[in-house]
This record gives sequence, C-alpha cells and structure tokens, in this order.
Amino acid sequence: MEKHFSLNDILGMERFYRRNLMNSISGFKPCNLIGTISYREVANVAIFNSVVHIGATPPLLGFVMRPLTVPRQTYHNIKAREFFTINAVARSFYERAHQTSAKYGDQVSEFEACGLTPQYTDTHPAPYVRESPVKLGLQWEEEHHIRANGSIFIIGKVVEVLADDSLLAPDGHLGLEKAGILSVAGLDSYYESELLGRLGYARP
Amino acid sequence: MEKHFSLNDILGMERFYRRNLMNSISGFKPCNLIGTISYREVANVAIFNSVVHIGATPPLLGFVMRPLTVPRQTYHNIKAREFFTINAVARSFYERAHQTSAKYGDQVSEFEACGLTPQYTDTHPAPYVRESPVKLGLQWEEEHHIRANGSIFIIGKVVEVLADDSLLAPDGHLGLEKAGILSVAGLDSYYESELLGRLGYARP
Repeated sequence: MEKHFSLNDILGMERFYRRNLMNSISGFKPCNLIGTISYREVANVAIFNSVVHIGATPPLLGFVMRPLTVPRQTYHNIKAREFFTINAVARSFYERAHQTSAKYGDQVSEFEACGLTPQYTDTHPAPYVRESPVKLGLQWEEEHHIRANGSIFIIGKVVEVLADDSLLAPDGHLGLEKAGILSVAGLDSYYESELLGRLGYARP
Repeated sequence: MEKHFSLNDILGMERFYRRNLMNSISGFKPCNLIGTISYREVANVAIFNSVVHIGATPPLLGFVMRPLTVPRQTYHNIKAREFFTINAVARSFYERAHQTSAKYGDQVSEFEACGLTPQYTDTHPAPYVRESPVKLGLQWEEEHHIRANGSIFIIGKVVEVLADDSLLAPDGHLGLEKAGILSVAGLDSYYESELLGRLGYARP
C-alpha cells in the first residue's frame, strides 16, 4: 500500500520521526570522514553523509554543513586553514567513524578520542584518516548560505588523491566495494554494497 | 600500495579517465529519477546521482544540475512550473532509469521513450514515476550558481511523500533495501545494499 504524506502531515510529525523519515527518503548516502586542523593545531575529524560530485574539470566536490547555531569545528577550521580532507569510511573502522559524531570539545582531537590515525602529506596541513582506503585533499573554493534553513553548502577543489591502487580500474573507475567502503541511510544505518550491473552510455 | 595523485596529475589525465575517477571518489551515491513537466505539458524524467539532505524542518532536499551549456529540460521545466519530483530507483526498473540519461529532444517524453509510467496527484503538476517505491514531490525553494564550474545547486521543499508502507519503521526510518532501492558509483555502476549495522546516538 502506498502511504501519502502531505506537507502538513510532515510538519505535524513527532520531531524524531520526521528527522528519521527525512534523512532516509533521499536514498543511500556516501559515508565520509572530513578531516581538518585548527589554528592551534588540534586535528579534527567528523562524519558526513552529504558529499556530492560537482565536476571533474576542475575536480570539485561539495558538502552540506548544518547551521552554525552551535560551534562547528569543521567549518571554523576550514575557514582558518583553507584545506580539508574527505576520507571514505570502510567496514573495518565504521564504528570508530560513527563515534566522531559525538560532541567533543574543541581542545579534544577526535582522532585520539575515537582511535583513528592522522596522516599528513606535504601538499597541505589538513589530516587524512590513515585507515581509509580513499583519501582526498581539498582546498576551499566557495560556499553558499542556504536561506531556507541556514545550512551552508561548501565546495572544495580536489588537490590530492590517495587511493589504494588495487581499487583503480584501467579506465579510472574506483571499485569502492573491493575495499569494503560503506554507504549510509538515515542517520545511523550502515550498508555494504554489491555490484548489480555496469551499464553502457545511453543513446536514444 | 597507496597511489598518490597531485592536482597536476589529475588535470593531466586523459579526459574519460579523469571523469571516471572523479565521479567515483566521493563514495556511493543515491540513485533517483527527477520528474518534471514542461509549459507544453510534456512529462520529462531524468536520472540524477546528486540528491542531498538539507534539513528536516522544514523538509528540504538539494541536487546539482550540470552547467547550462546545453539545454537542460529538467531545469527549464522546474523554472517554468515550480514543482518537481524525486523518485528512488529500484532493481526492478534500473535499466529503464539509466536509459533516461540518453539525449531525447524536448518534444519527446522520456516516460514513453524509456517505458516508465507517469503518476499524478492533486498536490502539484509534476509527474511521479509509478514504478518507484519512494516518491517525493518538491516545490522549488532557492538555487545557487556555482562560480567554479557553472553548475547549479537547486533546493526544494518536500510537499508530498508517497512511500510503500511496508518500508516504514515505527520510528520513521525507511528501509530502502527492502524495496531493492539502488545506489550508484561512478557514472554507470549500480549497487544493491545489505544492512551491516545500525548504531546508536554517539556520546563522548
């Protein structure tokens, strides 16, 4: 049976019910850790499910920051240091990745608190997550403030890619499932993926 | 072995290699059909992998439109008619959903050309995809033009949800995998998902 909800039905829902429904209706989401470093050199890492492809030339990705109604270390660190990392979450460390969503103070590094390992390169100051099989370094490019609810859409240019070379197909496609990379639905449900099919370029 | 690519390496890649790599590095992506209707009442449907959660109160979703360097029927129809639909793609019709990415003219309905069925409600004029187990009706709310590459981030308010009620958990969470809803990696690789774990609210 198909259930219909109107906008009034949605706005009248109990708060947690609405949050669960609205977080799961858009489909499976990517699961990434965003790494940043503060002005005082505290390495921060936090889980995000909103990373989205913007373009390949130049290489651009975006993600959504929740409204700045409470301190957002990831946002403040990006503004202070210009660079951040996006690291794919895999099965081998997903409980630790989820734990980064807890509210630690700005003097605490979630790397230490959650048992993850920072990894640095010479390209930029932001920390990668060593445990991740696909790590991206990005430079802040632009941001857009969403009037409807105060959230912020941040866009970065990919300046470095570190990827396990066993995942790389000859045509550049990364076989994410081979490294146990996960997806998320809703706020807290983690999924493994199995390839159903790869389809050709569609023509009329 | 971890392979390192610099920005110069990325910009120097063969074009299709870079496109495949950049489309797969961000992780698994949601797989949705966006339905619109033109001023002349031609129903349009096209596949998108960029739908992202913006907020629950009010209920908001966003998605990325490629630059308007060629005619984009989805964009023009949203601007002309204000409403659009987002429909989850499931295993039972994913080849037909992929086929909507072919370039049909603006007088052709992809519903007919690809064997999908439009479904209408009294709430707004945009067509849903009857075959989809999770259908959302949205009203255009705002859009942001991305300076870095000319793409457009469109935000809509969810004004209607039609969902198979067997997917709805008592807490509002939708069990997407129960309806065979798929995710995508890269441009053309479709995945089924299996629940690994649901984790509790994280505290320090």
